[in-house]
Amino acid sequence: MPEFNAPLRDMRFVLHEVFEAPALWARLPALADHVDANTCDAILEEAAKVTAQLIAPLNRSGDEEGAQWHSGQVTTPRGFKSAYSTYIEGGWVGLSGNPEFGGLGMPKMLAVQFEEMLYGANSSFALYSALTSGACLAIDAHASEELKSLYLPPMYEGRWAGSMCLTEAHSGTDLGIIRTRAEPQQDGSFSISGSKMFITGGDQDLTENIIHLVLAKLPDAPPGPRGISLFLVPKVLIKDDGSLGQGNAVSCGSIEHKMGIKASATCVINFDGAQGWLIGEANKGLAAMFTMMNYERLSIGIQGIGCAEASYQSARAYACERLQGRAPTGAVAPDKMADPIIVHPDVRRMLLSMKAMTEGGRAFASYVGQQLDLAKFSTEPREQEDASALVALLTPVAKAFFTDNGFDSCVLGQQVLGGHGYVREWGQEQLVRDVRIAQIYEGTNGIQALDLLGRKVIANGGASLRMFTAQVRDFASSPGKPYASELLDAVRRLEDVSDWLQARAKVNPNETGAACVEYLHLFGYVAYAWLWARMADVAQRSMEAEPAFYSAKLATAKFYFSRMLPRTLSLEHTIRAGSESLYELDAASF
Amino acid sequence: MPEFNAPLRDMRFVLHEVFEAPALWARLPALADHVDANTCDAILEEAAKVTAQLIAPLNRSGDEEGAQWHSGQVTTPRGFKSAYSTYIEGGWVGLSGNPEFGGLGMPKMLAVQFEEMLYGANSSFALYSALTSGACLAIDAHASEELKSLYLPPMYEGRWAGSMCLTEAHSGTDLGIIRTRAEPQQDGSFSISGSKMFITGGDQDLTENIIHLVLAKLPDAPPGPRGISLFLVPKVLIKDDGSLGQGNAVSCGSIEHKMGIKASATCVINFDGAQGWLIGEANKGLAAMFTMMNYERLSIGIQGIGCAEASYQSARAYACERLQGRAPTGAVAPDKMADPIIVHPDVRRMLLSMKAMTEGGRAFASYVGQQLDLAKFSTEPREQEDASALVALLTPVAKAFFTDNGFDSCVLGQQVLGGHGYVREWGQEQLVRDVRIAQIYEGTNGIQALDLLGRKVIANGGASLRMFTAQVRDFASSPGKPYASELLDAVRRLEDVSDWLQARAKVNPNETGAACVEYLHLFGYVAYAWLWARMADVAQRSMEAEPAFYSAKLATAKFYFSRMLPRTLSLEHTIRAGSESLYELDAASF
Repeated sequence: MPEFNAPLRDMRFVLHEVFEAPALWARLPALADHVDANTCDAILEEAAKVTAQLIAPLNRSGDEEGAQWHSGQVTTPRGFKSAYSTYIEGGWVGLSGNPEFGGLGMPKMLAVQFEEMLYGANSSFALYSALTSGACLAIDAHASEELKSLYLPPMYEGRWAGSMCLTEAHSGTDLGIIRTRAEPQQDGSFSISGSKMFITGGDQDLTENIIHLVLAKLPDAPPGPRGISLFLVPKVLIKDDGSLGQGNAVSCGSIEHKMGIKASATCVINFDGAQGWLIGEANKGLAAMFTMMNYERLSIGIQGIGCAEASYQSARAYACERLQGRAPTGAVAPDKMADPIIVHPDVRRMLLSMKAMTEGGRAFASYVGQQLDLAKFSTEPREQEDASALVALLTPVAKAFFTDNGFDSCVLGQQVLGGHGYVREWGQEQLVRDVRIAQIYEGTNGIQALDLLGRKVIANGGASLRMFTAQVRDFASSPGKPYASELLDAVRRLEDVSDWLQARAKVNPNETGAACVEYLHLFGYVAYAWLWARMADVAQRSMEAEPAFYSAKLATAKFYFSRMLPRTLSLEHTIRAGSESLYELDAASF
Repeated sequence: MPEFNAPLRDMRFVLHEVFEAPALWARLPALADHVDANTCDAILEEAAKVTAQLIAPLNRSGDEEGAQWHSGQVTTPRGFKSAYSTYIEGGWVGLSGNPEFGGLGMPKMLAVQFEEMLYGANSSFALYSALTSGACLAIDAHASEELKSLYLPPMYEGRWAGSMCLTEAHSGTDLGIIRTRAEPQQDGSFSISGSKMFITGGDQDLTENIIHLVLAKLPDAPPGPRGISLFLVPKVLIKDDGSLGQGNAVSCGSIEHKMGIKASATCVINFDGAQGWLIGEANKGLAAMFTMMNYERLSIGIQGIGCAEASYQSARAYACERLQGRAPTGAVAPDKMADPIIVHPDVRRMLLSMKAMTEGGRAFASYVGQQLDLAKFSTEPREQEDASALVALLTPVAKAFFTDNGFDSCVLGQQVLGGHGYVREWGQEQLVRDVRIAQIYEGTNGIQALDLLGRKVIANGGASLRMFTAQVRDFASSPGKPYASELLDAVRRLEDVSDWLQARAKVNPNETGAACVEYLHLFGYVAYAWLWARMADVAQRSMEAEPAFYSAKLATAKFYFSRMLPRTLSLEHTIRAGSESLYELDAASF
């Protein structure tokens, strides 16, 4: 049976050593009172216990049993309900929530580590609270004070959950064509009618209430994405004193039978004149929903890292135990019938690919977390603004690059186990099935790529990109940095390709879509190169304190630069091939 | 509900137009009497009917129900038994079998197309007969005349099935350490004892008997792979007149719970002093088994192509129907609420990637089929010898490159459908689960890569490789061939890298294993480039006869050269990075 243990040492390395987070926290007044290095480590250790002992043990049974739907009610798998109650007692749902309404006010950099643990332990379980945290963020940012005081405290407590209701049967990526309607009522509330699908945690038996954030159209709304409003629609109506009243006209029509995350209920949710309340301004719902969506995008990216870490742990254990064949350079364990398979170059290649991409992803997620903290808590307007621009730029990269690599890593982890990876017993096949959704939901990775290249790079003339590459150049140009020339080459490649695309997109509107997926990957590899160089820099300086740990970092950095970064060559070449070859075929000739 | 229809026009294109197979068949005496263009087309059409109407409809229900095991007996899902009897009545199991024992003697080039249809329709179903065909091949090549006459006719009929018993719990890739033993008996037979696992079709309720081909060790066998012998062990013993006698001491201990191919029973098979007969010479069992394994390797490669084709068909249909967003260059269907998603560049990129790699694979599989036919039926010793060498070289490429691309294609097909690809309904998620095994069984793709680079390229000093690249050069150097310079560049890259590796492997035994997976992919991309250039060449010359069909071939060739072949750049770079960065980390520091 596979075990999952949070990689605490690696997390501390990233937080304390690479990003020196405690120093940042100390200078941000909103964080200084809440967290320091010791609190941070205490929280991480407690989180590691909760995820390893309470949540991970329900991963396989949850997959086998799945969420069930009977006569409109969802039942989560055995053990989920009791584990969920223990979990919320720890205050985890409100970890980075607004303290004004009962949240713990912890920095995102720390929450990012916790999310990784949660997904690594049990992706289905993690989703139930991930949606709540995101919904709280949108409510906190856009709802009225009255709604905030009524809804946020029980949501941060985890007694009530959140959901995100966007997709309809005919409308997924294209939200402009949704049909759910909102009719204004005398009392200022709205009557919501329509059917939403693919609603993660749309129903469950874990919480007393579920607060749906629903996109709908007002009667006089303009067509398309500028006519969408956001509503708060509770499953159970709330009395003025905050206690539960009668049921709202919200029902769960069915749940999906999916490839993975089977313990997470993916629901059809029907609103039949349900009472709801407007969040933010009329017809500006998409922007308000994006507060939640951007949160979820980073979170789902982290699902990729968590699953990859879990897969790595199991593959590493297997590779050290499984005896098969002999090392090419001669027997390593001559007293045994065969050597452990970790002696074989191709097994090492697979494990190192997983390790390099997972640790690179963890550093990148922490960096995005840092920028989120600056955007939220910095007292210097310029710093805050820059951080917000970086978050906008990097969120699609985080979502898509983490999950593409998370999927590839889990597939590699499964491959290390051979036939044993394909059967249920070792957990690898479940990780592949569970992580696969992360490339699809919260905006497919193709949509993330289009967002990155079209909106975040081309639309602002590369301004945010230059802010990012300037940081990379600054690092690489400082004296004595490892991999400086490789890094400068890589960042120049990214800049050149970006300039070229900027020019091409003006001539042919198909170019952005033709290049964007490869462009996002190119961006991701360059960003990871920067982070691996930073990690190597720290490791070089700290070597004496803990030689085994730091030399592993140096070895992994070396592997990344020699065997992963060269992928940028083909990506550049493919991008420069342009869109022409995509449009030679009529739709009918495919 | 997804439909599957064999791509008959594309198959005829490859067989008749690209490879001019009927002309080859006419000059080989063993085939000339059995098959010509008309017979070939009639067989393909009948095969398309059987797979679309009889076998594909059982694919999803077979997955949902799965093979079941109760008290030592395997039950296949509802409908399998009756479909299997109709299927064997058509004589399909013996399609390319030896006519002396009741096979139909059809060329492998034709059988290859049929196998693709079978896997595309239903991989689990396909496996039950794929193992029989392979077992027949090994029996026909290595067993005594007596065993052949007794076993081959009912196996070609499909009344009896075959299985391949290699793996044991502690011994998968490393067969030298198997423990199953064979004790000689007075009557010339052997008593076989041991436990085998991961036995595809090791038990089922479709056939009257199952003929296990079992690797075991004789009492005086030398250690390692040179002490392995091959035995024929029937589930039910056969009387001298060929009728069924009493049960043999063979039992099915359990079946695996797997990620996919759930309707295929993957069994633990226990031999408790079962009666068996030696096939071929004592201690030379591995070589004899390789006759079957090489057959299965190509066949499993073709599973990759079949699943990819099925995924492509469903993704194409979805992309033409699903309305979402507008084309970047302006609405294509302004009267509808949105355009079909096939207008989007990234959707086209995904579909064209699938199409280019699947059709490239089909051409490559047909080419390997052609070489197998020459190796078996040519009357010119030199031609026969060369073909055998090419088959040995190309089999690992076919197995691994087809299945790596088959998996990637199914993942892309799933991605085209977004959330609808992740739920059961559209069949895409099943294809991903089903095709994943093909990268693992019959020797993992890492093992195929080691076989290619270590045994088939380096061990013979590149002789077989030069035979292959000479063909590519001949084509590219002929006047007027499309993509000639791209192809010459690509083949030069392959040759240079091969020479470089040849030299490196002498210095450091880790280099082969460090480079082999990327090398196999480099080889595959170059081979597909050659085949796409050949297809483009035929299409250019035939254009007027059927412009829509041939211009689609030209467009796909263009896509392949502009957007897929550039992957060779990174592969070369990664290969040349060498093994060093794989060995900087102690096993304990992973």
